[in-house]
Formats: sequence, C-alpha cells, structure tokens
Amino acid sequence: MSTSFTTWQGRFERLRANKLFETCVIAIIILSALLIGAKTYEETSRFEQVLLVFDMAVTAFFLVEILIRMAAERRLRDFFKKGWNVFDFLIVAASLVPLDDSEMVLLARLLRIFRVLRLVSMIPELRVLMVALFKSIPRMGYVALLMFIIFYIYGAIGSFLFHGVDEKLWGNIALAMLTLFQVATFESWATAVLYPTMEHYPYAWIYFLTFIFLNAFIFLNMMIGIVLDVMQKESVQIELESGQGEAAELHGLRADVSALREQLSRMEAMLERREG
Amino acid sequence: MSTSFTTWQGRFERLRANKLFETCVIAIIILSALLIGAKTYEETSRFEQVLLVFDMAVTAFFLVEILIRMAAERRLRDFFKKGWNVFDFLIVAASLVPLDDSEMVLLARLLRIFRVLRLVSMIPELRVLMVALFKSIPRMGYVALLMFIIFYIYGAIGSFLFHGVDEKLWGNIALAMLTLFQVATFESWATAVLYPTMEHYPYAWIYFLTFIFLNAFIFLNMMIGIVLDVMQKESVQIELESGQGEAAELHGLRADVSALREQLSRMEAMLERREG
Amino acid sequence: MSTSFTTWQGRFERLRANKLFETCVIAIIILSALLIGAKTYEETSRFEQVLLVFDMAVTAFFLVEILIRMAAERRLRDFFKKGWNVFDFLIVAASLVPLDDSEMVLLARLLRIFRVLRLVSMIPELRVLMVALFKSIPRMGYVALLMFIIFYIYGAIGSFLFHGVDEKLWGNIALAMLTLFQVATFESWATAVLYPTMEHYPYAWIYFLTFIFLNAFIFLNMMIGIVLDVMQKESVQIELESGQGEAAELHGLRADVSALREQLSRMEAMLERREG
Amino acid sequence: MSTSFTTWQGRFERLRANKLFETCVIAIIILSALLIGAKTYEETSRFEQVLLVFDMAVTAFFLVEILIRMAAERRLRDFFKKGWNVFDFLIVAASLVPLDDSEMVLLARLLRIFRVLRLVSMIPELRVLMVALFKSIPRMGYVALLMFIIFYIYGAIGSFLFHGVDEKLWGNIALAMLTLFQVATFESWATAVLYPTMEHYPYAWIYFLTFIFLNAFIFLNMMIGIVLDVMQKESVQIELESGQGEAAELHGLRADVSALREQLSRMEAMLERREG
Repeated sequence: MSTSFTTWQGRFERLRANKLFETCVIAIIILSALLIGAKTYEETSRFEQVLLVFDMAVTAFFLVEILIRMAAERRLRDFFKKGWNVFDFLIVAASLVPLDDSEMVLLARLLRIFRVLRLVSMIPELRVLMVALFKSIPRMGYVALLMFIIFYIYGAIGSFLFHGVDEKLWGNIALAMLTLFQVATFESWATAVLYPTMEHYPYAWIYFLTFIFLNAFIFLNMMIGIVLDVMQKESVQIELESGQGEAAELHGLRADVSALREQLSRMEAMLERREG
Repeated sequence: MSTSFTTWQGRFERLRANKLFETCVIAIIILSALLIGAKTYEETSRFEQVLLVFDMAVTAFFLVEILIRMAAERRLRDFFKKGWNVFDFLIVAASLVPLDDSEMVLLARLLRIFRVLRLVSMIPELRVLMVALFKSIPRMGYVALLMFIIFYIYGAIGSFLFHGVDEKLWGNIALAMLTLFQVATFESWATAVLYPTMEHYPYAWIYFLTFIFLNAFIFLNMMIGIVLDVMQKESVQIELESGQGEAAELHGLRADVSALREQLSRMEAMLERREG
Repeated sequence: MSTSFTTWQGRFERLRANKLFETCVIAIIILSALLIGAKTYEETSRFEQVLLVFDMAVTAFFLVEILIRMAAERRLRDFFKKGWNVFDFLIVAASLVPLDDSEMVLLARLLRIFRVLRLVSMIPELRVLMVALFKSIPRMGYVALLMFIIFYIYGAIGSFLFHGVDEKLWGNIALAMLTLFQVATFESWATAVLYPTMEHYPYAWIYFLTFIFLNAFIFLNMMIGIVLDVMQKESVQIELESGQGEAAELHGLRADVSALREQLSRMEAMLERREG
Repeated sequence: MSTSFTTWQGRFERLRANKLFETCVIAIIILSALLIGAKTYEETSRFEQVLLVFDMAVTAFFLVEILIRMAAERRLRDFFKKGWNVFDFLIVAASLVPLDDSEMVLLARLLRIFRVLRLVSMIPELRVLMVALFKSIPRMGYVALLMFIIFYIYGAIGSFLFHGVDEKLWGNIALAMLTLFQVATFESWATAVLYPTMEHYPYAWIYFLTFIFLNAFIFLNMMIGIVLDVMQKESVQIELESGQGEAAELHGLRADVSALREQLSRMEAMLERREG
C-alpha cells in the first residue's frame, strides 16, 4: 500500500508540475472571473441555471486541483508550510462553505470574487510583486502613524471649531477625518469644504492650508526617504559586488609582492653567506 | 536599363538625404496638421473647395515622397525592414483608400489626422523618445495586470453591493470599474460617489478607503521599482566602464610584478650557480 | 538630606527608564486621545461628568509623569536642555492653565488636543522622523519663496484683470492667491474658475495655463533637485566608506613595495662592496 | 575731470557693494510689492493720493539705484553684459514709460507688478535657482513636443467626433485641446466631460482612457528620464572625482614598481659582469 501511495504521489507531483495543467488552472480562474463579472449584468438573470451549473463546476475543479496539489506533497504538513498554498486553500475552502440561506447569498458571492486572487498565486511574476509589496509595508508604517496623528489632531480641531457649519462634514471626529481625507485628495476641497466654512470662519483658510502643506511636506519627504532607503541598499550591494572583483585583484597583487619579498630574502641570505 | 535604374536610385538616395528635402517634408506635415485643425472650425466651411484641393495636394505630396524613399532603396524589401518606414507607409496608404461614401467621410478624416504622427518618424529625437517609451512597456506589464485584478475584484464587489444605490455608477462590472477609475483619479470621488453611497451603506467608506490606499500603495511601489530598476542598470554600466579603467591599471600592475619575479628568478639562479 | 535626595533621584531615574512605565504613559496618551475624540460625539454629552473626571485624571497623571521626569534629572536645568522635554513641558503646562471662563472653554479644549502630539515625543522612531522633517525645511525654503513670488505676481495680475468677473474669487490679492492655490491643486480650476472667467476675457486661458505650467515646472525641478541633493550626499558618503577599504589596501601595497625597495638597496650595496 | 570721475565711480562701486544698501533695496522692493498688493483692496481707494506719492517715490528710488549701479561700472557696456542687469533695467524702464492715458492705466499697473521679480535678481540663492530652471528647459523640450502632438491628434479626433455633444467643450480644435488639458488634470473629467459624452457615444470611454493612460505613461517616463539623466551626470562626476584619488594612487604604485625594475636590472648587470 505504501508503494501504491508513493506511485500516486509521484503521479500527482508530475501532474502538478505539468505546464499544460498549470495553463488549464489559469484558464479556469479567468473563466471563473468572467463568470463573476457576467453575473453583475441584469441580462444574465435568465441564464441563471446555466451560470449556477458553471459555478458548481468551477468550484469542483478548484477542489480537485487543490486536492491534487495536496496529494503531490510527501506529507500534508509540507503543503501548509508555503504561504501561497494556505492562501489558495482558504480561498477554495471559503467558496465551499454552504451559504444557501437567502441572506447569506451575498456573502457567498463576495467570497467567490476572491477566487480571482488565485491568479496572483499562480503567476510567479505577480507573486514576486506581491512579496515586494508586503516587504515595503513596515518601511511605511511609522510615516502612516505620523500621518494618522496629524489627521486625528486636525480632525479633533475641525470637529470642535466647525461643528456648527456643516453637521455632515464636521459632526464628529470620524466625519471630520473623512472630510480631511477628501481635502488631502484635493477633491472639491475649496468649493465644497473651504468656501462654505470661510463664510462663518473667515480665517478657516489657515486651518486648511497648514493641513495641506503639512500633508504634502510629509508625503514628499516619505517618498524621498523611501527612494533613498531602497537605493542605498542597492548601491551598497553593487559596490560590494563590483568591489569584490577589485578587492580580489588587489589581494592577489599583495600576495605576489610578498612572494617577491621571500625570494629577495633568500637571495639576500645567499649574498650574506658569501660575504661572511 | 540596369544602369539607368542605378542612376535613378542614386539620385533618389541623394534627394532623400538632402536636408532641404527633409525640412520641406516636415513643413508639409505641419501644414497638413494645420489643415486638419482648420477644418474643425465652422467658419472654414465656405473655403471647403480650397481645403479639398489643399488636402489632395498634401496627399499627392506624401505619396510622391514615400515613392521616392522606396525608390532610393536598392531593394524594396530593405524599405520595409525599418519599422518607421512601415509606419509611414501605413499612414500614407490609409489616406489613399477612397472613402467617398458619405458615411465613411468621418473615418477618412480620422485617418488623415494620423498623418501628424509622421512628425514623430521624421524628427530623430522624437523617434528615440518613442523607442524608449516602447521599451518601458514590458516593465510596467505585470504591475498593470495586478492593478487590473484589483480593479476587477473591487468592481465586482462594488457592483454586487451598491447595485441599488446608483444604477449608472454601479449597474454592472464595467460601469463599476469605470467609476473606480474615476475614484482612482480623485475626480469627485467623495462628493459624487462616496457620500451618496454612504447614505445607504454607512460603512461604504471602508470599501473606498481601502481601494484608494491599495492603489496609491501599488502605484508608489511601482514608480520606486521602475526608478530603481532603470538606475541599477545604469549604475552597473557606469561601474563597469569606470571599473574597466581601474581593472586595466591593476592588470598592468600585476604583469609588471610578475616580470619582476622572473627577473629575480634569473638572478637567484645565477647566485645559486656561483654558490654551487 | 542630600543623601535622601540622591536616593529619590535614583528611584525616579529607574522609574523613568522602566519599560512598563513608558508603555503606561503611551497608553494614557492614547486614552487621552480617545477621550478627545469621544467628546466630539453629541451622544457623549450625558456622560459629561464622567468625561470631566477622566480628563482631570489624565491631566493629573501627565503632571505627575513630567514631575517624575524632572526629579529624575540631577539638575533641573538638564531637563530643559532637551528640546523634546521642553515640548512635553509646554503641552502639559498649557493644559493646566485654568480656562473655566465659558468663552475660553474652546481654547482649553484645543490645547488639550495637542496632548496627542506627546505620542511623537514618546516613540523614538517618530522622533527620528520629525527630526528628519525639520532638517529638510531649509532645503525647501528658497523654492517656497520663489513660489510665493510667483503666486504674488499672478495674484496681483489676476486681481487687477478679473476684479469685475467674480468679487469672491478675485476681489483682492489675498482672495486671488487663495483662488490660485485652488487652481494649483486642480480643484474645479476649469469648471469653476477658468470657464466663468473666459466668458468675459476669452484669452484668460493664457493666464491660467502659464500659471499651471510654471508651477508644475518649478515643483518638478524642486523634487528632482531635492532627490539629487540628498542622493549626492549619500553616495559621496558610500564612496568614502567603500573607498576607505580600497585606499587602505592600496596604501598597504605601496608600503610593501617600498620595503622591497629597501631590501634591494641593501643587496645592491653588498654587490657593489664586493665589486669594489 | 577724469580723476573726479574715477573718484565718483569708486564711491558708487563701494555703495553698490555695501550690505546696508543691498538690504535697503530689498526692503524697498518688498515695500513696493506690498503697495501693489494694497492697491487691490477697495478700501485703499481713499488713500489714493498717498499711494500715488509712495509709488512715485519707489519709482524714483529704483531709478536712482539703477543709475548708481550703472555709474559703478567702468564702462556702461559692462553693465549690460550681465543678464540680470538687463533684466533689472527693463523692469525699471518699463515703469518709467508715461502711461497716463486712462486706457493705459491697467497696463502701467501690470508693468509695475513685475517689479516684484527684482527680488529674484537681488537674492543670489533665487538667482541660482532660476538659472537651474532655465537650464532644464531644453531637456523637457522634446517631451513637450511629443505631448503637444498627442494633444493635437486627440483634439482633432475629439472635435470631429464630439462636435455635436457640447459646442463649448468640443466646438473646434482649440476648445477641444483646452478640454483635454482639463481632462489631463483630472478636473471634473468624468462628471463634466466623460459621462455627458457617453450618453451620445457609449464607447467614448475608450477615447478618454487611452488619452489618460498615454499621458500618464509619457509623463512618468519623462520624470524617470530626467531623474536618471541628471543623476548619471552627477554620478559620473563623483566617480571621476573619487576615481582620481585612486587612479593617482595606482599610478604612483606603477612608478614604484618600475623603479624596482630598474634597480634589479642594474643588479643583474653586476652579477652578469662578474659571471662573465
């Protein structure tokens, strides 16, 4: 039985590594994405039965595919060791949960949308991109915190001062922060936020201009900081690599020179012996 | 006859290389562009006959010019080997297709507009710029794919959730993605999209803010990535070039030292012979 | 008594350096921030008494904390030598000023908001960020001055020319500069500012387009300038560091070669002596 | 008389170099700027007489100042050799032209605004900035030309296709290009331009999206290109400078080694002589 298991495991491993199988999986993911997109059109409601069958077929295919990939591993534990496998497993598992309750239909639909994300885990270049994105998160963390503090302080000030101007924009600190985010994206910040506020508080422009300048200033510095940070690491590495060649050359040269020295010392000894 | 052909080919080759001829072609392209622009003014309709004659003259000139350039080549095949020649040929050919049908007049006009693009193929600096632009496309390909996936997923979610809020903005996945593109450009995203949606779904801000942050995050990383990518190549090249000089110097030094060694060995041998 | 003072000072110093104490202070700052946020909600008005007690407790805690940090120093003067201590002291002192007058309540509230800034002085990473931000201010100073001059000139021109078009937008130089800032952020610059102006002055687009291009041009150059400026400093430093290693190697090599030379001179002398 | 002229010229030269005099000129320029700003306020109309006197005083001061700077030069020709002097001269001369005609008052006022620009020619740091800005213009020239071609082509297409949708936005190629510039700045491009157009031409989004992507793509590439271009020059210079030190070191080393070689040759000759 152990032999037969190994045979099957080998077969699944070959299947998983098969280029055609991979292309097929990507095709099914794209098909599944198109299905999801198609369902957003009213006109497709009369093909509901067909779409339902398609949907079940796709679900079944994904289930089989992930089972094959699990079976291809020596031990099941190895499968879950890779982050992307866990990612795929969760997406497939989520779409298996029976949510036939009419209220839950929306949630079931939403969960199925995330299947499109499997495209990221299937295409190596996108996987590399995602890893690079995740790596850059901590670098941005403290700047994000600083920005949040500024938003919070300005939100609190704005909510206290402009409370009476527009309840919808400045009613409480959460609304005020949302309004400030709108101001930070420059969306109707002057016509819809600044000018109505200035009618009651003529000096409100100080509040908005300091906020915009502070934001732009921190954002600019953050971008420059990140570029320099990443660049410095790169250039140090390049220096090291290009330096290694030169360093090796220099090292060889010193070895040559010290060999010369030994030879000279031998010759000097000979001359001295004759002298003596 | 072969001789006479060669004579003519040489004449056309000289004509093509003539600076005056080149300037003349550029002038005609600009004139043709101005003609196209002039036709968009209502007031020019009474000069329609004049404009039509001008247009035919420009078309004829372009035809003659491309025939000269074809005749200047040894073999016609050589002409089509250069991408820019094919580009010019297609533009000239397109404006020759008889589209007198009243319905086709618009298409004929549109095709003539692309003649302005011949300016790009005539000015070397613009050609270099265009080549650089084309080269940078693959580098952006996967980031574009990742962004499309994010737009698709958010589009599907938005279409499912906000379907009832505004049929024009969220009616189907295509409309939802267009709305999301509007949000990504920050155009009226808060006043025209977020606030109306929040009236029905108070937590809609989570959807929009995560989308905006995700977009900004990927875009920022992409820009940094591209800058670093291009820079690394440049700096490696600079290192190599500047390194070559140094490496050559170091190499010469080692050769010198090994010559010293041989000389010493000869001397040592002499001393040993005497010793023995 | 001096001994007992030293004992207490040591105790406070230990307490200040205590990780738990630090975490506790940060927690209280966050709690204080949440209190400020909570007060912006109408619904919290019935818990006014509770909030007031909380507020007083927080104020008291901050007072005690800063007194401990003062007592932990050998001399009070040392405390005020650090900029961040002065910063903390001012924030705490400001919230102690009795502003019970009904008109002053708003000011008292505003002063309390700045307590959130103490988070910046408590978290070392944010402190580093702030220092970096402050350092980059002078670098931007002259570009800011140049931009202000451009805004002022365009503001004066706009105010003279478009005075009659819209009193609210172009009434005086201050309003005109605010309008120009709105144009610089691209907020409704065409629909709300350019088109209404063009109805009276058809050539107003020259004014707006030159302004936008000038702004974009200076901004772009400023960004490039800053990146290059910072980068140059970094790369010079890297060169120096990586160069030092190589320079040391080269220096050692020259020393080796000059040692060789001395040895050879000794040998030559021996040979000459025998010759003579 | 020649002596007295030289004496006076020396006096003016000392006056021009005087720090106090320079500060005074800057103060007068700022005062003049404030005067211009003040005139844009309605309320200042009753001080018109005072402002007029001030204005004449400032004009007189500027005239005297430029005459002093002219007299400080050995030869008048030297004065006009410096670009900034010509710049100052033109600004002062322009404000001297008598424009008392009621229709010309506006022009006279506008000319006086440009006096503020003298601040740029007085402050060395701003002068450096301006020179750097002027130098970067040619680098952007061809990208600007390419962008203009794209705007022209899209303008022509837009004008032909959407002529009937909105005469104000697409009436002729000039209006269409202005509309496209508005789209390029993302100002109400979706709500005010795209959606109204899509009601008549459902596929208009292709036109707008390709335009936006093309623009963004060229702009991004241009920025990257400029950064790299400037950076490459900088880094080549740094390499050269840092390289020179190392190259000198290496050169010295080779000289040392060739000296060793000569010494050895001398020794070998001695040995051979004895041998023979």
